[in-house]
Amino acid sequence: MRILILGGDGYLGWPTAMHFSKRGHEVHVVDNYLRRRAHNEQGTDSLTPILDTLPARAKAWKDITGNEIGVTEGDITEWEVTEPLFKDFQPEAIVHYGEMPSAPYSHKSREHAVFTQYNNVVNTLNVLWAMNEYTPDAHLVKLGTMGEYGTPDIDIEEGFIDISHNGRSDTLPFPKLPGSWYHLSKVHDSHNIHFASRVWGTRATDLNQGVVYGIETEETKLDDRLLTRFDYDEVFGTALNRFCLQAVIGHPLTVYGKGGQTRGYLNILDTLQCVELAVTNPADAGEYRVFNQFTEQFSIVELAEIVQRAGKEYGLEVSMEHIENPRFEKEEHYYNAKHTKLLDLGLKPHLLSETLVESMFEQIQKYKDRVTSEHIMPETTWQTREKIPS
Amino acid sequence: MRILILGGDGYLGWPTAMHFSKRGHEVHVVDNYLRRRAHNEQGTDSLTPILDTLPARAKAWKDITGNEIGVTEGDITEWEVTEPLFKDFQPEAIVHYGEMPSAPYSHKSREHAVFTQYNNVVNTLNVLWAMNEYTPDAHLVKLGTMGEYGTPDIDIEEGFIDISHNGRSDTLPFPKLPGSWYHLSKVHDSHNIHFASRVWGTRATDLNQGVVYGIETEETKLDDRLLTRFDYDEVFGTALNRFCLQAVIGHPLTVYGKGGQTRGYLNILDTLQCVELAVTNPADAGEYRVFNQFTEQFSIVELAEIVQRAGKEYGLEVSMEHIENPRFEKEEHYYNAKHTKLLDLGLKPHLLSETLVESMFEQIQKYKDRVTSEHIMPETTWQTREKIPS
Repeated sequence: MRILILGGDGYLGWPTAMHFSKRGHEVHVVDNYLRRRAHNEQGTDSLTPILDTLPARAKAWKDITGNEIGVTEGDITEWEVTEPLFKDFQPEAIVHYGEMPSAPYSHKSREHAVFTQYNNVVNTLNVLWAMNEYTPDAHLVKLGTMGEYGTPDIDIEEGFIDISHNGRSDTLPFPKLPGSWYHLSKVHDSHNIHFASRVWGTRATDLNQGVVYGIETEETKLDDRLLTRFDYDEVFGTALNRFCLQAVIGHPLTVYGKGGQTRGYLNILDTLQCVELAVTNPADAGEYRVFNQFTEQFSIVELAEIVQRAGKEYGLEVSMEHIENPRFEKEEHYYNAKHTKLLDLGLKPHLLSETLVESMFEQIQKYKDRVTSEHIMPETTWQTREKIPS
Repeated sequence: MRILILGGDGYLGWPTAMHFSKRGHEVHVVDNYLRRRAHNEQGTDSLTPILDTLPARAKAWKDITGNEIGVTEGDITEWEVTEPLFKDFQPEAIVHYGEMPSAPYSHKSREHAVFTQYNNVVNTLNVLWAMNEYTPDAHLVKLGTMGEYGTPDIDIEEGFIDISHNGRSDTLPFPKLPGSWYHLSKVHDSHNIHFASRVWGTRATDLNQGVVYGIETEETKLDDRLLTRFDYDEVFGTALNRFCLQAVIGHPLTVYGKGGQTRGYLNILDTLQCVELAVTNPADAGEYRVFNQFTEQFSIVELAEIVQRAGKEYGLEVSMEHIENPRFEKEEHYYNAKHTKLLDLGLKPHLLSETLVESMFEQIQKYKDRVTSEHIMPETTWQTREKIPS
């Protein structure tokens, strides 16, 4: 199958490209190095040393496995970049990771908020128009986020909910309560993609992904030149990955607020499995389907405790610190999100275990010297108004 | 009260500015003449001859009434334009009409779709950031549209709905099924504004307005120099206004498809009333409230029949033509949208009558010579795919 991967230089994009290439698919990746540039700006970097450019990564992949991955270095908010990807490569599936992925980043300033929504909304619009014009039967597999739903006081369904109201009923998009300018951009995307399916018959799968953890995949393990990035700073790092690194360098685990915030989590290996299941079981023409892509729910404190226990086992002394929550979110709330559709397609979850955490410690140890610890503590806040008259 | 009106050169913006100015408020308007430029591009124009610039309109207003209206000619997607409006004028209420307002326009091409979402989303983000930074207690009165809801098979509530699900319940944003790239931009705005209320305590009222009809207000009647624009072309004209014009020039009423499409409608006089009610009864800090702003529901065929009957009375021969629907919409559907909140605040509706339609005929007659009829028939289609494999 011809698979186009948007954001192919990223934490998940690069492993996904190798995963499909390994399985005999024809893979083309595109990336504008947005994440690398944002790291440069803030003086941070990936823990793992990754090769400098996508062509260098693709060359290493070719050298090691003999498989080719096509590369475009460019920005898909520019039609001049997007159009030829569809016109010339004629993808049958598009895996869309090509967005600004960070909630704190979107809260740094007005410019960051505007950029985040501009970048994500416009590049997805370009993809939808290009699909409709050049590859109307292709299937869009779009990475959304569980954060689109927020924390409503009812069970979270997969994209749609049956509502009975005043004696009538309908199945409608699940109402969204996103918690950042970034998460809002994903909600906007979801509405735009759903519309494209309704009006143009676009095939689309929206993967509302939980928080991903893990540092290696089958392919990254083949050679150090194939490593994927691993972020641990306050802007691009995510909960479990950051906790594991903090444990290794002897930094207290930074629990934001009370730590009752509960979210869905999954192993990076399961991201690859889920994306493959979506790609190989495409949506029907005109179908916009939503899969909640995670395998387990944890509160932040539960995660921190798992890391503490694994640390003890591994010989690390791990402390936990409740720090002021920079975000706008409930710290104690009901949370029960459905996630059966990918299991129905055959997902075999890699559940979180202390053994997995210990193997993450081991990987992190290797690159410990590369850690810059000054951007671990949160600096970016949601700027909530202190005093709201009641 | 200091009132800032975004989009103050428009069909509703200009009458709103005069309405508040007349009542002793300090009014400042801003506009980038987007609508005028779009008309120039497509070779169309307002039926009514309006003055060339906002400063000229404000000068006429001053000459006729002695009241001042402040003017900024500029684009609020540019922070350099938005910031001083808040920093210097310090508005207590912001009435936000400043968006690209046309569904067909947003469907002309990829560029138009991207522009529409960029323009509307970014300018509203700028407004929210400027409010939070310079006027955190000000009240945003944002013009949304009933089209955000689409046509679900249940009653449409005002912004939020109580959902009971698996033994639990919550009040959540009403799910949206918008029918164009333009309507989607308004849904994006709604989510962004709701978030600003939640995270920053912004006071906001989202007026989900129906289709407005009418050609004059108390203030436009004072002098021909104070006329507001009146659009009748396929891109910017709306149902009843366009039908009235078609009746006067002897063009068949253009009913799209079966004509069962039912929507909420209101008189331009009631737009002014509703906006005034919202401004003078501000939302609380942190409150995002949604009012469905219309007074009556009609199907397209019902509207056409009203115009036919009024035409007969008036001495016009009015025919009706069912033409191929350029839009993506259901032509027969359930529709029952609540609209009690503005009535509760004191709205006294001007209901549609044949007398009102006849007085519109009379106004239109005056400017009949200015009509260019070649852009009345729809040229812009939603480009729905002809054959969707089932």
